[in-house]
Amino acid sequence: MKQADVLVIGGSAAGIVAATTARNFYPGKQVTLVRKENKMLVPCGIPYMFGTLDTSEKNVVPDMVLENGKIDLTIGEAVSVHQENKTCTLEDGSKIAFEKLIFATGSSPIRPQWLQGIDLENVFFIPKNKEYLDRESRIFADCKKVVVIGGGFIGVEMADELVKAGKDVTIVELLPHVLSLAFDKELASRAEDALIARGVKLSCGKKVQKILGETKVTGVALDDGTVLDTDAVILSVGYHPNSDLAKEAGLAVNKMGFIKVDEYMRTANPDIFAVGDCAEKFSFITRTPKRTMLASTACAEARIAGMNLYKLSTVRAFNGTISIFCTAIGEDAFGAAGVTEDLAKERGFEVITGMFEGVDCHPGSLPGTHKQLVKLIASKDSGIILGGEVFGGRSVGELTNLIGFIVQNRMTVEGVLTSQIGTHPLLTGPPTAYPLIKAAEMIAIKRNSYLS
Amino acid sequence: MKQADVLVIGGSAAGIVAATTARNFYPGKQVTLVRKENKMLVPCGIPYMFGTLDTSEKNVVPDMVLENGKIDLTIGEAVSVHQENKTCTLEDGSKIAFEKLIFATGSSPIRPQWLQGIDLENVFFIPKNKEYLDRESRIFADCKKVVVIGGGFIGVEMADELVKAGKDVTIVELLPHVLSLAFDKELASRAEDALIARGVKLSCGKKVQKILGETKVTGVALDDGTVLDTDAVILSVGYHPNSDLAKEAGLAVNKMGFIKVDEYMRTANPDIFAVGDCAEKFSFITRTPKRTMLASTACAEARIAGMNLYKLSTVRAFNGTISIFCTAIGEDAFGAAGVTEDLAKERGFEVITGMFEGVDCHPGSLPGTHKQLVKLIASKDSGIILGGEVFGGRSVGELTNLIGFIVQNRMTVEGVLTSQIGTHPLLTGPPTAYPLIKAAEMIAIKRNSYLS
Repeated sequence: MKQADVLVIGGSAAGIVAATTARNFYPGKQVTLVRKENKMLVPCGIPYMFGTLDTSEKNVVPDMVLENGKIDLTIGEAVSVHQENKTCTLEDGSKIAFEKLIFATGSSPIRPQWLQGIDLENVFFIPKNKEYLDRESRIFADCKKVVVIGGGFIGVEMADELVKAGKDVTIVELLPHVLSLAFDKELASRAEDALIARGVKLSCGKKVQKILGETKVTGVALDDGTVLDTDAVILSVGYHPNSDLAKEAGLAVNKMGFIKVDEYMRTANPDIFAVGDCAEKFSFITRTPKRTMLASTACAEARIAGMNLYKLSTVRAFNGTISIFCTAIGEDAFGAAGVTEDLAKERGFEVITGMFEGVDCHPGSLPGTHKQLVKLIASKDSGIILGGEVFGGRSVGELTNLIGFIVQNRMTVEGVLTSQIGTHPLLTGPPTAYPLIKAAEMIAIKRNSYLS
Repeated sequence: MKQADVLVIGGSAAGIVAATTARNFYPGKQVTLVRKENKMLVPCGIPYMFGTLDTSEKNVVPDMVLENGKIDLTIGEAVSVHQENKTCTLEDGSKIAFEKLIFATGSSPIRPQWLQGIDLENVFFIPKNKEYLDRESRIFADCKKVVVIGGGFIGVEMADELVKAGKDVTIVELLPHVLSLAFDKELASRAEDALIARGVKLSCGKKVQKILGETKVTGVALDDGTVLDTDAVILSVGYHPNSDLAKEAGLAVNKMGFIKVDEYMRTANPDIFAVGDCAEKFSFITRTPKRTMLASTACAEARIAGMNLYKLSTVRAFNGTISIFCTAIGEDAFGAAGVTEDLAKERGFEVITGMFEGVDCHPGSLPGTHKQLVKLIASKDSGIILGGEVFGGRSVGELTNLIGFIVQNRMTVEGVLTSQIGTHPLLTGPPTAYPLIKAAEMIAIKRNSYLS
């Protein structure tokens, strides 16, 4: 029987980061990573396999990162874990013993079984599976019309890529706006403007009644009686955690199906950890359980698990997800961190918000200048920033990360206002009207009048 | 006599921000801004008037920002301030009385009088003066060769713009590398590579002996005997604070000529403040006095002065400059915040550094991907991050600001490692190899082995 000091099950972002962190912090320990896929895709690069990248081969995570880290890679599917024997059995019957085990088993697309027609030909999901997606991509090549059901960020990115590839694309979203878990309506409506400008058709606030067709999909019927003719459907209505393996091993999962873990990413068994999409999470701000599945959260959890494997450290603990993410639609980009205004209020916060629209270069007459809009949400009593949303150009990703650090450091609007922000004509907004600072200032002014 | 509640002297970034902040936080107070210039230039946009922008008119700060803020603008030069009478006299003899006064008088180029030939025709400086710079720009149009003396960021940006405009440009720098106050040699050498690739000639580690010519400059003689033929010279060897007005009013200036201020940006007279290039500053990290003159620091000081004018607040205090700035050379961008490794050591810190080179999009096969390199400098005993340096593409500005917030929040490498970073194929590096996190990890691993 093979013997691993540290065994990681799952080879996507969380698994890779957990394995490399374990090796880096415990160089004396041997690490084995087991995954079922022959080639791993960069998960967030998947939509770009349908337009921007000419082949899915360009979206493969190089195994070199594991080789360089001296991590042993085993291709195979883990089918059971035995807590007492500390062994994992693979599909081929082979076993691997472990000192420490990390579940990084990820998530799979939700298949809404109540929805008539989901098994028709040309109805697709977006799993992290290269063979499936390669087939999907080949079939799309012959389709003219595609309906995307679900306007979360995967649905939006897929729509944007398919329209770029010349398809007639419609997004159907149940809620009044696309991306509404991440953005309040001011920003969500900017994203909708960007999608419409790119040629994507939107059908928001509409429920899908059924998917139509005999053997192959021909249309999508909405509750309001509309029928959308189509050659293909993408269902992007969320993902569920892959936690069966852990559950069958006797580990606890929460009501939403995530493997229960503590701040060090440990299950109830101190030798077994779980990280990424399969692991339980709660909100950094509202402290309630979350279904967030993002590489940002997954990789932070993986680093924390890797560092705490053999030695706990309170400064290396996970304190909840800030749901930080960013996306691009054509030349426009969008990002969010922490809670939206809507969610903050729903969870019981009294909030003050500030929003400022400026530019991402200065003077705005410089070529390549893009509008930049920042909305900040702060707690009324403490002034602590609970969340932020950004619209702009290519610098939005790092600006969102800056807001993420503000939220994670529990900075107040006064803290932000007294901070130094570097600016440069070609790289940022102006020092006199940097949108993040101006949004914070608007909140500070409102609090100032409220406190005095 | 005119009566102002708040009088601001100086209309560049610090003056504008001080005035608008004062109005925003004390809406009952009237604010007057006095400046001598008819039109104000965006200071950091000045180099781009020589290539990228076709006219200096596009680099003018719109006075609309003052009008919108209901700030009274007076064009005129302040020639004296009387502390007891609380009045300011302008060149035309008119007087303005004030309750609160803010000096935002800026800085002027250093004219090294010891240097023979500085008064020759076609020897130029880079003052924030539109008429002077317009003339300079017209003369450059007819020049083929330009020598830039001083390889700080203004010299580097001017060189990059002039080479773009087709000139033959040489930078002469006394120190072994350009930009060496902001960057350690690893990053400075990247900047040098970028300059050379753009066609700029570098002459580092060389001292200028004299500037040659009869009435008009013809060359620059270096200490090693080299003579550089040239049609024009730009002297960018630093700036000195405009503090004479304050000094003559009886306010204290420090040894380097800056107006002495406390954490609230007050002079010894609690009704008189100073902000920006003219105000005294010290390092956030090393606590020693600094000559830093950057819009980032100036605007933070201006916000703090504006908020504390009539009511002090300890959460609205200035805690020293982090010298944060960023710049671009062609498609490459560079940024820094906090201290360099060299400076940290020189000031007595034991440091551990981490450096990681990756990409700013992912997978790296995506069009438009640029290399991204991050170096972090941490205190060996505490793990607190003292500074960071970045090389990359257009996202460098906001990534530098992110590092600035890390420094200002005194985050440790472990704090950074447990943080959540949002990533997106088109907007950031990959979640598994985000350079900032990898650089922090390298330091944490070194500290881990050192602590155990």
